Amino acid sequence: MDVRAILFDVFGTVVDWRGSLIEELGAWGAARSLAVDWPGLVDAWRGAYAPSMGRVRRGELPWTNLDALHRASLAELAPRFGLTGQTPEDMEWINRGWHRLRPWPDSVPGLLRLRRQFILSPLSNGNVALLVDMARAQGLPWDLVLCAEVFRHYKPDPETYLGACDLLALDPAQVMLCAAHNDDLLAAQRLGLRTGFIARRSEYGPHQARDLAPGGEWDVVASDMGDFAGKMGA
Amino acid sequence: MDVRAILFDVFGTVVDWRGSLIEELGAWGAARSLAVDWPGLVDAWRGAYAPSMGRVRRGELPWTNLDALHRASLAELAPRFGLTGQTPEDMEWINRGWHRLRPWPDSVPGLLRLRRQFILSPLSNGNVALLVDMARAQGLPWDLVLCAEVFRHYKPDPETYLGACDLLALDPAQVMLCAAHNDDLLAAQRLGLRTGFIARRSEYGPHQARDLAPGGEWDVVASDMGDFAGKMGA
Repeated sequence: MDVRAILFDVFGTVVDWRGSLIEELGAWGAARSLAVDWPGLVDAWRGAYAPSMGRVRRGELPWTNLDALHRASLAELAPRFGLTGQTPEDMEWINRGWHRLRPWPDSVPGLLRLRRQFILSPLSNGNVALLVDMARAQGLPWDLVLCAEVFRHYKPDPETYLGACDLLALDPAQVMLCAAHNDDLLAAQRLGLRTGFIARRSEYGPHQARDLAPGGEWDVVASDMGDFAGKMGA
Repeated sequence: MDVRAILFDVFGTVVDWRGSLIEELGAWGAARSLAVDWPGLVDAWRGAYAPSMGRVRRGELPWTNLDALHRASLAELAPRFGLTGQTPEDMEWINRGWHRLRPWPDSVPGLLRLRRQFILSPLSNGNVALLVDMARAQGLPWDLVLCAEVFRHYKPDPETYLGACDLLALDPAQVMLCAAHNDDLLAAQRLGLRTGFIARRSEYGPHQARDLAPGGEWDVVASDMGDFAGKMGA
């Protein structure tokens, strides 16, 4: 392998979206004595993620970034889980919870090792402002920030993976996608990128039923970011 | 002012393109006993920069990134200054001299101060790979890398300045362009961005006749990056 750059899926692979949102929003709600089913809301919110991007990918919606998709699905789901009567400012603060997600404990140390040798970028369906806020707050050592919004195509559209290779002026075989999701890796592999799988067995909570193990012939399979860095020789 | 992000012109403002290229290519040529007029070649190469981007901006050329424009103008100019008979690999190494430019001595310390308070990005006509290579080699602490190539429009096309504000999810008034070039700042100011001028009186060498002083009502005027950081309260 002659990998020069590693692109990272972010939600689930680098950060613990579910644990972060349930913890932060739960504490916020408790301080206000709100009777909200936060785990239910967070899971339903994430459940709306792929369908909402699907509407953009199929052209049923014009380009809409993830903050806006999240905002719309939150507005629709909130009452069903007991979240009502909040100010627009509070709803916006909740929506920006996705900007404040915490990395898995192994993520930053592993990324710091990898960065000495490889160009590192997210390749996320999150938008630029979200990823920049997250990186600044959490110390994610990206060299640049690539994501769906830059290419106006959500993964797994080929334009995102190939657009990243093009901007980096690298052949797909010189670029690796690192993700906790087999479908993301499959899309990248079909376009000639290298692939690295990190198992995140609690991303979806205690009843996770997907992505518990590698589901393809990935170039690297790792148990966490430190293991991944080691297997990449970093 | 409520500035959240600062965008930086790079060639001339952050890095000393002329000094870097003349020094590095001169040493390279001397080691090979080449009789090349390096200062003449470097100045002519930079002289071809605006006209070559102009052809793209007017639609006479399809989108072409700066590495490719530099490559074409180098091929055309080289024989006139005594640079002939080089291998394609050597010509490519010379062209990538733009990836290896050195910052002015005050740039990195000033940027490190600014980064504690502001989102920092280049907004350069250089391409992504060039800017990423430069940042990694020189320790330029960008939060993200925005440039003409991302928007497929060269400055001063409005799409570059407004595209950056849009990706950052900020109003133009929350974004400052910092540049050593009055024309760049004028284009940004007309679109509502804040402006910061840094005088770089030797960017074009001993006979520099342009941009010796601020040529507009800029929000901040500074003598170097440290002075600029101080005036921004960083």
